[in-house]
Amino acid sequence: MNKLILLSDSEQQLRVARVTECMRAEGVEAVLLADNASKYYITGRVFSGYVYITADGYVACAVQRPVELDGPEVVYIHKPEELPGVLPALPARVGLELDTMSWSSVARMVKALGIEAPANASAIMRVARSIKTQAEIDLIAASGVRQERVYRRIPHLYTEGMTDIELQVEIERASRLEGCLGQFRISGDSMELFMGNIIAGDNADAPSPYDFAMGGAGMHPSLPVGANGSEIKPGNTVMVDVNGNYTGYMTDMTRVFSLGEIAPEAVKAHECSRRIHRELCAMGVPGCQAKDLYERAVAIADEEGLKDYFMGHRQHARFIGHGLGIEINELPVIAPRSRDIITPGQVIALEPKFVIPHVGAVGIENTYHVTADGWKCLTNSPEEIIALR
Amino acid sequence: MNKLILLSDSEQQLRVARVTECMRAEGVEAVLLADNASKYYITGRVFSGYVYITADGYVACAVQRPVELDGPEVVYIHKPEELPGVLPALPARVGLELDTMSWSSVARMVKALGIEAPANASAIMRVARSIKTQAEIDLIAASGVRQERVYRRIPHLYTEGMTDIELQVEIERASRLEGCLGQFRISGDSMELFMGNIIAGDNADAPSPYDFAMGGAGMHPSLPVGANGSEIKPGNTVMVDVNGNYTGYMTDMTRVFSLGEIAPEAVKAHECSRRIHRELCAMGVPGCQAKDLYERAVAIADEEGLKDYFMGHRQHARFIGHGLGIEINELPVIAPRSRDIITPGQVIALEPKFVIPHVGAVGIENTYHVTADGWKCLTNSPEEIIALR
Repeated sequence: MNKLILLSDSEQQLRVARVTECMRAEGVEAVLLADNASKYYITGRVFSGYVYITADGYVACAVQRPVELDGPEVVYIHKPEELPGVLPALPARVGLELDTMSWSSVARMVKALGIEAPANASAIMRVARSIKTQAEIDLIAASGVRQERVYRRIPHLYTEGMTDIELQVEIERASRLEGCLGQFRISGDSMELFMGNIIAGDNADAPSPYDFAMGGAGMHPSLPVGANGSEIKPGNTVMVDVNGNYTGYMTDMTRVFSLGEIAPEAVKAHECSRRIHRELCAMGVPGCQAKDLYERAVAIADEEGLKDYFMGHRQHARFIGHGLGIEINELPVIAPRSRDIITPGQVIALEPKFVIPHVGAVGIENTYHVTADGWKCLTNSPEEIIALR
Repeated sequence: MNKLILLSDSEQQLRVARVTECMRAEGVEAVLLADNASKYYITGRVFSGYVYITADGYVACAVQRPVELDGPEVVYIHKPEELPGVLPALPARVGLELDTMSWSSVARMVKALGIEAPANASAIMRVARSIKTQAEIDLIAASGVRQERVYRRIPHLYTEGMTDIELQVEIERASRLEGCLGQFRISGDSMELFMGNIIAGDNADAPSPYDFAMGGAGMHPSLPVGANGSEIKPGNTVMVDVNGNYTGYMTDMTRVFSLGEIAPEAVKAHECSRRIHRELCAMGVPGCQAKDLYERAVAIADEEGLKDYFMGHRQHARFIGHGLGIEINELPVIAPRSRDIITPGQVIALEPKFVIPHVGAVGIENTYHVTADGWKCLTNSPEEIIALR
């Protein structure tokens, strides 16, 4: 038998306390969690089944697969209909993850549990997970260290005449050999991306269907994002934004590489991105509104005459940053209508980027840990545009 | 502007006819599709937005992103609430994809459309997509040809002392350079896998939380499936089951490699898998029940004294085959309680596999096109156990 719970008791208690605090704020008496990200958060392990938590801190796991897991309050079931027989009597207001569970799964669960209208546990888990414990920060920082090692090797992976996808494949290999797990966890299932986004030259200006900061036409209309197979040419930038999941927790980092001389306007925009990082890090003290950070970033881009290129050119992204951790799109969202407030314990990726026609994408992305003493960068590669050779 | 619809008129008509036939059988007058797989099926492109189809064959696309798509019956919207203003008057029975849309998205859409109880379009799309057009078969076959090229190179990718994950990274690189898109489309969001499953030696016996045919402990408890970093040792098999998505359509192929001499029982089980393939291909004439194929496979394994090792050892999978195409888990399902009937135009991956303790996993997986004249194999690599060196 293997222990189901891989977190230490004290770590699990911290996380459960975050969840129950959010439950009480919403008047929810119990949650039944089915999402892999939620199960990993509460147990340190992904399994098939459910985690049940009551507002007073009782935790039980109902497991379908794998076999042979053990621990206090671990029960095995074959199907959700067995849950009422293995869980304590349910309170009136039970929450399910309505934003990620399918309509059919919720309908089946509501019937199985014999409850009326479920509360929405998705918002509870999003808010709970937005403030990281120190152990979570350590896992994110550890991902950052390994991702930095890969980024430092990128100029050595480039050989003359390479296409964007050929360079991407070598970066993927270097990442995987460094221990990258590959998997990008994205909340919701309409955004798709494989390993990361490498965009060279004018492909940066190809609009994509997904709500990522940058687009790219992709290699195929079934996955229309990122590298499109074009050769990296002198005067082009190559923006590298690849998967930083080394620990089940991700860092998000973007750096820009160049071949030959690039236009002064691109260099200026890149430096503008770095200025936005510096100003937003200073401005984002606890209590600051996320939307004010967004507005300030737009104002700086405007001030430098770069607004038309900010966050895209033919198509513009509607945010400049996002929380991350187990998933790449957590709270807070740094966007115009965000109601999120900057709070210590958040981990935020800032990605003010520009698309300069005939050059490519420029700007950097860093992952920051918000503390009472300021934002601490967890992705410490050199920030300048780096020559590929 | 770019054409939204990338399929030829005649190809799109064939696919829409499949869908409307299934709609009429279910008494559904219109469907509004949001799933990326469905949108790709009907248009040949993934985009953010919706495809609307009526039972008499009218098709419209409401696009959110990317910008600059064009074509007949293409409209742009910002949010689902705008749909009633841009679509023709809705009939009484509208179907939504209730098995893949989240509860919250369905609730919002039902309100936006002003409809009462939505019908379930998921089953309609699953049935429609289970019978492929010739153009789809050609795309799957093209994936198979490229996947075969990668598999033939595997013995040359192995070097002495490699771990399973190191070999996997080289296979991933070879696949990507051959044009593999990487993305595994899996219906439903609780199954996760990166690129494929490479399992060596006793790691084959580690149970996983996912409903895949084989397990493996994985590199990390946040993604507990597949290679676990163990060295490939003499007497071990290495089962390779990697992503065959080269065209937006997938093939699924498994082959077994070995280091040094392996136990006779493992060779016997591998040959038993090949026998199951031969017998099931002959038995699976149109009209045959999928569950009878499953029972026959189990009977053959039993007859050869291998039942305890069939489809796992510590944990057993509950199916031996599955339809595939845009997604890896389509209809029919070859499982004990399946109600599916073998029908020309289906594409089926058969994967009768065995886990032999202290040796590893054996058995092959092939992707077949079901025709009136028999099953045609689309994954034609040599089927024997192949020596790594």
